[in-house]
Amino acid sequence: MSKNFRIDYQREDRIGFQEVVFGASKTVEQLDAIIDDYQKNKKSTLITRVQEEKANILCEKFKPSFYDPISGILLIGDFPKEVRENEVAILSGGTSDQFLVDEIYYTLLFVGRKAARYQDIGVAGVHRLLDNIEELKKFKVLIVVAGFEGALPTVVGGLLPQPIIAVPASVGYGVGEGGKVALYSMLSSCANGITVVNIDNGYGAAMAAFRILKS
Amino acid sequence: MSKNFRIDYQREDRIGFQEVVFGASKTVEQLDAIIDDYQKNKKSTLITRVQEEKANILCEKFKPSFYDPISGILLIGDFPKEVRENEVAILSGGTSDQFLVDEIYYTLLFVGRKAARYQDIGVAGVHRLLDNIEELKKFKVLIVVAGFEGALPTVVGGLLPQPIIAVPASVGYGVGEGGKVALYSMLSSCANGITVVNIDNGYGAAMAAFRILKS
Amino acid sequence: MSKNFRIDYQREDRIGFQEVVFGASKTVEQLDAIIDDYQKNKKSTLITRVQEEKANILCEKFKPSFYDPISGILLIGDFPKEVRENEVAILSGGTSDQFLVDEIYYTLLFVGRKAARYQDIGVAGVHRLLDNIEELKKFKVLIVVAGFEGALPTVVGGLLPQPIIAVPASVGYGVGEGGKVALYSMLSSCANGITVVNIDNGYGAAMAAFRILKS
Amino acid sequence: MSKNFRIDYQREDRIGFQEVVFGASKTVEQLDAIIDDYQKNKKSTLITRVQEEKANILCEKFKPSFYDPISGILLIGDFPKEVRENEVAILSGGTSDQFLVDEIYYTLLFVGRKAARYQDIGVAGVHRLLDNIEELKKFKVLIVVAGFEGALPTVVGGLLPQPIIAVPASVGYGVGEGGKVALYSMLSSCANGITVVNIDNGYGAAMAAFRILKS
Amino acid sequence: MSKNFRIDYQREDRIGFQEVVFGASKTVEQLDAIIDDYQKNKKSTLITRVQEEKANILCEKFKPSFYDPISGILLIGDFPKEVRENEVAILSGGTSDQFLVDEIYYTLLFVGRKAARYQDIGVAGVHRLLDNIEELKKFKVLIVVAGFEGALPTVVGGLLPQPIIAVPASVGYGVGEGGKVALYSMLSSCANGITVVNIDNGYGAAMAAFRILKS
Amino acid sequence: MSKNFRIDYQREDRIGFQEVVFGASKTVEQLDAIIDDYQKNKKSTLITRVQEEKANILCEKFKPSFYDPISGILLIGDFPKEVRENEVAILSGGTSDQFLVDEIYYTLLFVGRKAARYQDIGVAGVHRLLDNIEELKKFKVLIVVAGFEGALPTVVGGLLPQPIIAVPASVGYGVGEGGKVALYSMLSSCANGITVVNIDNGYGAAMAAFRILKS
Amino acid sequence: MSKNFRIDYQREDRIGFQEVVFGASKTVEQLDAIIDDYQKNKKSTLITRVQEEKANILCEKFKPSFYDPISGILLIGDFPKEVRENEVAILSGGTSDQFLVDEIYYTLLFVGRKAARYQDIGVAGVHRLLDNIEELKKFKVLIVVAGFEGALPTVVGGLLPQPIIAVPASVGYGVGEGGKVALYSMLSSCANGITVVNIDNGYGAAMAAFRILKS
Amino acid sequence: MSKNFRIDYQREDRIGFQEVVFGASKTVEQLDAIIDDYQKNKKSTLITRVQEEKANILCEKFKPSFYDPISGILLIGDFPKEVRENEVAILSGGTSDQFLVDEIYYTLLFVGRKAARYQDIGVAGVHRLLDNIEELKKFKVLIVVAGFEGALPTVVGGLLPQPIIAVPASVGYGVGEGGKVALYSMLSSCANGITVVNIDNGYGAAMAAFRILKS
Repeated sequence: MSKNFRIDYQREDRIGFQEVVFGASKTVEQLDAIIDDYQKNKKSTLITRVQEEKANILCEKFKPSFYDPISGILLIGDFPKEVRENEVAILSGGTSDQFLVDEIYYTLLFVGRKAARYQDIGVAGVHRLLDNIEELKKFKVLIVVAGFEGALPTVVGGLLPQPIIAVPASVGYGVGEGGKVALYSMLSSCANGITVVNIDNGYGAAMAAFRILKS
Repeated sequence: MSKNFRIDYQREDRIGFQEVVFGASKTVEQLDAIIDDYQKNKKSTLITRVQEEKANILCEKFKPSFYDPISGILLIGDFPKEVRENEVAILSGGTSDQFLVDEIYYTLLFVGRKAARYQDIGVAGVHRLLDNIEELKKFKVLIVVAGFEGALPTVVGGLLPQPIIAVPASVGYGVGEGGKVALYSMLSSCANGITVVNIDNGYGAAMAAFRILKS
Repeated sequence: MSKNFRIDYQREDRIGFQEVVFGASKTVEQLDAIIDDYQKNKKSTLITRVQEEKANILCEKFKPSFYDPISGILLIGDFPKEVRENEVAILSGGTSDQFLVDEIYYTLLFVGRKAARYQDIGVAGVHRLLDNIEELKKFKVLIVVAGFEGALPTVVGGLLPQPIIAVPASVGYGVGEGGKVALYSMLSSCANGITVVNIDNGYGAAMAAFRILKS
Repeated sequence: MSKNFRIDYQREDRIGFQEVVFGASKTVEQLDAIIDDYQKNKKSTLITRVQEEKANILCEKFKPSFYDPISGILLIGDFPKEVRENEVAILSGGTSDQFLVDEIYYTLLFVGRKAARYQDIGVAGVHRLLDNIEELKKFKVLIVVAGFEGALPTVVGGLLPQPIIAVPASVGYGVGEGGKVALYSMLSSCANGITVVNIDNGYGAAMAAFRILKS
Repeated sequence: MSKNFRIDYQREDRIGFQEVVFGASKTVEQLDAIIDDYQKNKKSTLITRVQEEKANILCEKFKPSFYDPISGILLIGDFPKEVRENEVAILSGGTSDQFLVDEIYYTLLFVGRKAARYQDIGVAGVHRLLDNIEELKKFKVLIVVAGFEGALPTVVGGLLPQPIIAVPASVGYGVGEGGKVALYSMLSSCANGITVVNIDNGYGAAMAAFRILKS
Repeated sequence: MSKNFRIDYQREDRIGFQEVVFGASKTVEQLDAIIDDYQKNKKSTLITRVQEEKANILCEKFKPSFYDPISGILLIGDFPKEVRENEVAILSGGTSDQFLVDEIYYTLLFVGRKAARYQDIGVAGVHRLLDNIEELKKFKVLIVVAGFEGALPTVVGGLLPQPIIAVPASVGYGVGEGGKVALYSMLSSCANGITVVNIDNGYGAAMAAFRILKS
Repeated sequence: MSKNFRIDYQREDRIGFQEVVFGASKTVEQLDAIIDDYQKNKKSTLITRVQEEKANILCEKFKPSFYDPISGILLIGDFPKEVRENEVAILSGGTSDQFLVDEIYYTLLFVGRKAARYQDIGVAGVHRLLDNIEELKKFKVLIVVAGFEGALPTVVGGLLPQPIIAVPASVGYGVGEGGKVALYSMLSSCANGITVVNIDNGYGAAMAAFRILKS
Repeated sequence: MSKNFRIDYQREDRIGFQEVVFGASKTVEQLDAIIDDYQKNKKSTLITRVQEEKANILCEKFKPSFYDPISGILLIGDFPKEVRENEVAILSGGTSDQFLVDEIYYTLLFVGRKAARYQDIGVAGVHRLLDNIEELKKFKVLIVVAGFEGALPTVVGGLLPQPIIAVPASVGYGVGEGGKVALYSMLSSCANGITVVNIDNGYGAAMAAFRILKS
């Protein structure tokens, strides 16, 4: 069989961070070969959305490794020793968004940023957000996760001046199933200057934050 | 030609308010014949979404009459002399929702309720809503209008205990064009016990409020 | 790990009923911690859409408890001793809607209202509804559940004067799959003053009825 | 220019009625050439959805002719002298559906069937339908037109045994705009054995009725 | 628990055939109770879309019974002894449509019509249809099943004069997944007088044919 | 103002044909500047979808020029003197597709191919296609245009061996409005090896044919 | 009439820039009253998407003023005297995107940033982008506009390290009509860390860039 | 049971390649009968999208046979001994597209063409494509596979002159789930003369290439 992957090792030089692997639709064999290639190049491998059975096999073989079953994020290698705090805050609307908070948190940790987390502060009880406004002013970037009607980034965007990256979560049912309502709410937001990533794209939100922090 | 309408004069006995006419897709001739029929039955006629040219012709012929060009609502006859206040409040997110605020306001006036209006209090500047919370507690029913991401009913629903009827407005652009995002946001709301009517259905929201007030 | 939930205990003061937990996308561990928190605050916990395996584990641990496998509703604690009858009627189109009738029924029971149920009275045999019209006049609020083409609320709305809360059910196939046709039918209804909740949102319909009954 | 039409004169032999022309997207020049071709073959021409300006030009040139501006149907030639009655009834929900009632009525007249019309008998006042049930039993085929939530065919289908052809009308607003809700309701109907044609396809419904009457 | 079904035994008097049960979303317990009710009324029960495990349990308990696993149709009772042939032909595009051909075939058998079947005659090899045109002329009604692009009814409609009921099948992938393309093709057909039922609604197509045959 | 266009003059070297201009959303001023740039480079300019008023202004200024109002195609310059025939046939379903037949025809003429045209041979009268099959065998590429249900390419694809480029036309109404049904039918076709271009993209189909003819 | 707007003058203190007015759906009278209010507060007013006739009336009355008819942006007041350059670059795929490039450019100018513009560098001729990569490295934020398939931000995102704000343009036809394809492409981008705003939301992109520049 | 398949053995004479079987929705029994029919006609059978369990049963029974579990392609019989190389190149964006690369590769092998494969050269690292441009010029047809935003065919189409068949892959998540974004991007491509097949239709792309190679 012809070789079916080509890792883009020059990416780090071009854009400041290395290629991360999308794990959901790859087989264990494909992931194994890819990790092997990274190891030969003396690089850690960060893989997103790895199903638990696949992760267990790979963690067994490759050490050191870290796997978070809630988000499915898998690191073959180590997180950096030194990290910077107080640069990013992750806000989320409800407990069901935990898988995205984790994906964002560990991706940022991989690039040396330890984010603060403010969870379950959705707008149905807006005082939970208002109580934290002063504290939130110290961060350089805000990543705001919400499912259902996705209103949290709008309220945040009207109260705080930082760059805001909104992440729609595929949490909801009926018309809200799959996260499209949250996505569309965020895109249609009457608050100004909010930007949005794809549904459940916690990884992309973390990278967008990192682009800002490096700039 | 066979007669093409049958007015449901028994509706008032059955459900407590008379049939209202949907004017947008009827010709002047059709509306003229319908009004004539109402007049023979000694009834006022309330017609929604009448285009300005059609309204002018009808107002010329039938007196007394009232026409609001912003909402397109047309009344052939008089509003009731005695009205009740402090029962319904209409909240709206922005100035562009005026056409719906008007449709709701005049429909309620037709059934003897004079609503209070709180306009342009959208969640991008949430203090505009918070400043009015105490005052809003006195009303029996809240009708909340919003376009774009439609987040206002969610925030209201988390702060106030009354029945809340959410009305999505066809105000927005891009993915928000036509009002579907506002509708879906309201249906997916994480606030509890909010009910919703069709996009731009101010008339229906007023009638739903009236059903509650009569109950 | 940072704490990932913040129960909104002030909600009862603000809007008249306490926070209810959405169970479908939470793990047993998350639900366990949340129930624990409620218990420390001496509160019952109502959780919707709990899968059977998860419910069994939680019912084993927490007593007293009640679980309805058809709707997935789980109560940790007791229903109120005293309830009021004859305030709400739940009408439904077919036997397949049972899961929603149950969710509405038990949610209302939790807030002290025992609803009457009129099931399988869909419009394909409209006499089944017509036979009950007189009896239905005594209730203060009607909750009408329907899947497929969702026509039942329209016919009810043309015959009865009370507040009507329409609940689309995700029952159907082909274009009707997922409940969107029922939802859209209800929103487009030519009957006046009907309000609608999200597909399968029996809980929300019960809360909307409760807001009206309290008003 | 190469000739851009080929009239299918054998269609009448094959399927029992001649080719009818779709007028909406053809220019006056194209329609003129097509009518000319029919005239050379000593045939009348039935054209649907002709805009008024185009119809006026063609009626000026070709005699005898008939044009109905509400439906846009244009006949170059004569309706048959002898027609059969009491075979088809056209039921419609509201006055705004007149354009479809007309398209169906005149198409059937062209093939020698004079239909009875029962208009504005929508289900928001279901007694208007119930009052006519006995009379409706005499027809061989029922064509049922409805816009908005499109519930009329379902109720008719539960009460009457004949073949029922449901025609969704593009009358409505919000989610009901364009007629898709009516179409989907009719397709999802819980009444049995109802068939459906495209939105606003009155012509097709008439032809389907004619296929049944001939069979 | 309140009784959750009401069988419409008057339906046969009203519309000429008895109520048929939609089995897919009912539990074995619900189906068991419904069959029991039919048996007390000395009626056979026809149930559509019954999953195999559920059917096995019910066939074990109720005799005589018939179950077709391809379509999921279940009959508790007997098919009629005497049936009429040569009235209906079922045409289908491909082998994957077998589940619908079966649902139509057995439903018609239940009401005393034995249909002829012409399978795998899709338009990608149009000679397979053309070879059968003469033979097909003898039937009174044609039911045409197709998935993928759903073109078969259009070609049949241009060649044969009978009433044609088009049935879109949920067979296809990519944009064709779920059968919407076939449905829309059939509704948009440039052939005249074709009517359509919901995706996979073989039962409805059979009933529509039966309405025509009785008329 | 900064210059807002950069013509890709190297495109002809890279892919064998020069850049063609999309005219619909450009102002007369923008088109004027672009044509000017081409003229300075001694090139003809082919512009698609130019509205009539804009074309008249430009044809007045630039000579020689050619404008086809049906398709909106505008050529500033001359068609090639020498052209090759019998390489491409354009088949279309109905007269309303003329605008696409023209766009394809003139684009091919611009690159030196004179196509044959077979119009109004839709599948509702399939003999019109069958009569031409032998003659069609001589062409190297077939471009097949259809609106409504878009079935023509499928039937052609089952009968003829050449490369087939299917072009969905935005001709139809109801569910067929805008051409999506035709597009999806063509993509879902059960005939093998058909390729498709965007709705109304006659220009792209001509270029795809040209890529094949050059290969 | 009750006052229908409340300008959020505290917004500048909270988030660093003042409220901007959405002009498309407001009447001249509403805009006039709003501008008046700003003037009383000694503020300039920036209004987006103002139709030309409305702008002319307002520019006549209020001085100084600036209006760009391509984007519809209207400034009542003056742009700042001092501006910063070399902070933002606006890249766009084609000439038809000019209206968005302008909206972004003038909004940034209003907050004191003069952006550089790189237009018509779409990926169908990728060398036009590659030629500018070195030069583009100097900017702090890149705003990338594209219609049709919206591929430009992906290619840019793979080549350059800065924060990238992608803006989908409503330029295209067929499936690309309205800009949803461009939006979805950008959200699904396999390039990392790209963020997106609503279709045609040039204003929002400018504000997002400003949030980053201030951070 | 009536016979439910009719193999179109004349297809090879008409269009140059034999009928291929769509395996996904057929049972083992149906496939077994079909293969049997082919064997009686002394033909190999190519079946696409066969699930692994079904393939194992069939491979056990019929020899020789070949099965590729990644694409699900099953050949009962032998690939041709002699094949032609350097005619087709398959380009793909990422490793997750392997199932489509395989379906295309083996289908082409079945008709005697051995394709070259260029995998994981997506546009997020555009140099991976640019490095291969010279080499790619030698092929007669390019098949380009991509999921997510589907931008690869556009960039290829701007750089290379051959016929290009774009194949959207159902690889992605959020708005990109199911492959519709890739499909729409390819259809909306601003590159010229690209044609597209259905999502995941690798088989159709191979056949389209074969039609070109034979022409």
